[in-house]
Order: sequence, then C-alpha cells, then structure tokens
Amino acid sequence: MKISLIGAGNLATNLGRALVDAGHVVCQVYSRTQASADALAEKLGCRGVSNLDEVVTDAQLYIVALKDSALSEVLPELIRGRNYALWVHTAGSVSMPIWEEYGLKHYGVFYPMQTFSKAREVDFAEIPFFLEASGKMEMDILKNVASSVSRRVYEADSEQRRYLHLSAVFACNFTNAMYAASARLLEEHGLSFEVMLPLIDETARKAHTLHPTEAQTGPAVRYDRNVIDKHLTMLDEHPLYKELYELTSRIIHDAKSI
Amino acid sequence: MKISLIGAGNLATNLGRALVDAGHVVCQVYSRTQASADALAEKLGCRGVSNLDEVVTDAQLYIVALKDSALSEVLPELIRGRNYALWVHTAGSVSMPIWEEYGLKHYGVFYPMQTFSKAREVDFAEIPFFLEASGKMEMDILKNVASSVSRRVYEADSEQRRYLHLSAVFACNFTNAMYAASARLLEEHGLSFEVMLPLIDETARKAHTLHPTEAQTGPAVRYDRNVIDKHLTMLDEHPLYKELYELTSRIIHDAKSI
Repeated sequence: MKISLIGAGNLATNLGRALVDAGHVVCQVYSRTQASADALAEKLGCRGVSNLDEVVTDAQLYIVALKDSALSEVLPELIRGRNYALWVHTAGSVSMPIWEEYGLKHYGVFYPMQTFSKAREVDFAEIPFFLEASGKMEMDILKNVASSVSRRVYEADSEQRRYLHLSAVFACNFTNAMYAASARLLEEHGLSFEVMLPLIDETARKAHTLHPTEAQTGPAVRYDRNVIDKHLTMLDEHPLYKELYELTSRIIHDAKSI
Repeated sequence: MKISLIGAGNLATNLGRALVDAGHVVCQVYSRTQASADALAEKLGCRGVSNLDEVVTDAQLYIVALKDSALSEVLPELIRGRNYALWVHTAGSVSMPIWEEYGLKHYGVFYPMQTFSKAREVDFAEIPFFLEASGKMEMDILKNVASSVSRRVYEADSEQRRYLHLSAVFACNFTNAMYAASARLLEEHGLSFEVMLPLIDETARKAHTLHPTEAQTGPAVRYDRNVIDKHLTMLDEHPLYKELYELTSRIIHDAKSI
C-alpha cells in the first residue's frame, strides 16, 4: 500500500511510524512548513514536501491528518488530479460527507481515538481505530491498514463517533474531575492525593473484567443513608461537590434498579 | 514481634500472609468459627482458636480485623487480662477512642485502605496503611510493622480517616459511575464499553505524574460552549446524565479559575 501522509503533527508522526513499522510504504510527507515535513520524512525514510504541487499523484491512499480547521483550506487544491485514489481523514469530529463536496468516489474516516498527552509514547496496538468508508471495498482496505497497526479496529458511523466523544467526556474528562475533587478534599485535610493512586488504579483495572454497573461499590449503591448523610454534612463548605455527591449517588442508585 | 490475629476474614487472611512473609510470628488466629480459624491458621503455620479463653495472653500485638459490628461484642472479654499489650483495629470508619472504653494504655488504628474485590489477589506493598496510635512508642511499633508489608505508610487521625473515605467515594465509586454512564451511552449506540478501556487506563496512569487539576482536558476546561451545548442536546433523553454533565462541567471550569 503506497501511502501519502498529509500532515506532520503529533498524530501524523505517531501514525506514520506505526505504518512504516508495519511494513507500509509512506512515500512522502506533506506539511505546510518544509522543516516539519522534513523532520517527519527523515524518520520515515521518505521525502518531505511543503508545496501542494509536489504531492505525488500516484499514491493509493491519502491519509489527511491535519487540524480540523485546516481541512477546508487545503483539500480542494490537494484533491484536484488525485481524485481516483482513496482519501481518509483522521478527525473524529468531522463527519464523512465532507468528502462528497470534492467529488471523490473512494473515501472514508480513519480515526484513532487517542488521548492528547503529547509527552507520552503512544502504543498504537492498544489504540482503538474507528473506521467509516464510502463502500465495502474501501472499508476492507482501511481495515487491513488499521489492523496492521492496532489490534482494536471497529466500524463506526458519524453518529456513533459523536457518541464516542460524549462517552469519552464521561469516562475520561469527568473521571479526572472526580480525581480532582478527591485531591482537593485530601489536601484540605493534610493528606496527599498520592495516597489515592492504588485505589484509582484498581478501579480502572476492574473495568477490564467487570462491567461498571456490576462493579459499583460504595454507600450509594447500598443506599446507606447513614454514611451518605454524614458525607453530605462534611461537604457543607463545598456546595458544588455536595450537589455532585447527591446527584451521582442518585444516578448510582437508579442504575441499580433499572 | 509476636502477633495474635483476631479475625479470619478477607482482610485478616491477606494481612496475615503478608505479615508472615515479612518474617513476623503470627502465634495464633482467633475466629468465631473453628473451621475458619483453622483454615487461616494452617496457611500461617500456627494454631486456630474459636474460644475467647484460648486467646494467648502473652502476644505483644493484637490485631483485631473483625467486622465493625462484631467489635463491641467480643472486645470486652478479649481484652480482659491482656490489657498490657498493644491493641489495634483495622477499621477505617471506627475512631480511635473506642479503645479507651476498655481501659487500655497502648492502642491504635492499623488501617490498610484497600478495595473490596474479593476475587483479586492483593499486593500489600502498594496498599496505603494509615496509622494512629496512643503515643509515640506505639506509633513507632506500628510503623515498623506496616513498613515491613507496605511501602506506603502514613499517619492519619480519625478526622483524616473520615475524609479519606469521602475522597475515595469521589475517586473510586463516582469514577466508576462515570464509567457506567459512558458504557450506557456507548451501548445505546451499538458500541462496546471495551473501546473506552485504553482511554480509561491512560486517564488513571496520567494521575501518577500530573496533578488532576493540571491534567484536566475536554470541552469543559476550555469552556467550549459549542461542544457543551451539542453534548447537552445529545443527552435530552437522559435528564440525570444531562444534569451531571452540566454540574461537572461547571465544577471543572470553576476549579480552573481558583
């Protein structure tokens, strides 16, 4: 599979490496600045270009890993003369019909759902890929490519991707907010947040073997009014945490009775 | 250190093993039923007893790992004639003054904050111990014993233990409730909760190196009203999740401006 990589940011860098490691030929890297195109191209053993005219016309797959806002700027010129190939973008929030505007026949979405820590080394094998394609042939190609770098490959349409993002807000952003509330309560009482890490790790590990509805523990699931009321009193000085405690306890208790 | 272990439940079993592995002498195990006393005693290479009269009188440390409700039933008879020794209980929610009622001089709390998964093997080295004692000498002894089985040993008074529990409700029980909400939203759209595990793991791992207030990502911390409003609309059929989304977003946004 001869691949042209459009973009040289964090995602393009990690993805490019994983593709080359998996034996694919990334024939060139395009970036708006020559320096960043060259930096990534060197790692991948290919050529870097910063001029849209220089993008090869004979790649089989064009992977566009640009910021959402840059897509509409460069796509029209990029696609012209290359519209027989398979085009995919990597943006979870951009729906697939964007490609139809450019008169493409073969297109799709190639979305690795990853966290945004820049400093951290990414293990692509564990990153889930969500694929959407204009047809069966295109989907088969994308599945082959994705499966060569990750063991978690799924099909998901644009609507499902919207709910993936919403679900990630709960499971990751809001989880982190629970950690932050915990940290604040501990620190106000002379305890370090660090003491909570073993329990946090165990809570995450448990989710691998037990559905979270089954894994629920604590005063709310038992509806232990005695403990709940004591905790609410302890939160008198944190009205928002108090509200959060009451609401989440209600959600936990309701989920049990569904 | 000659230790008498009062209790043969999940905690007593794990703790007894860890103490023996660390080179302590657990001289006997007491349980209300002879069978469970024997079962644990066999693992620890000592004698099991189920009669309070048979509990040795010459142990240096008595570790009481019974259910909270059983404490007041057996303690008066247990302590009589053994009140020169050091007595500790393992119950996070029981405050220390309970010991004063029994005329003890040397006492404390020896609380390993652990999760409640019965099936899972416990690595004591990672479990934080919170210690409270009637004096410096008693604290030094407890620190020595705790440090021999765990690398996370802290002092915490009864008030701090109450806030430890409250903080754990946020960091573990409520975190699990966020996983459950995420699972439900995914499953309603034909996606498996499993797809979220890599992000969940990464969120927990990040807490080891970055304070959760610093690690916060997502639409709420940016106060991206556009995404927030879209998400709220997507939650129209889940009024409690919608309320949770709004409240947590407000908490995240407020924490940023503290």
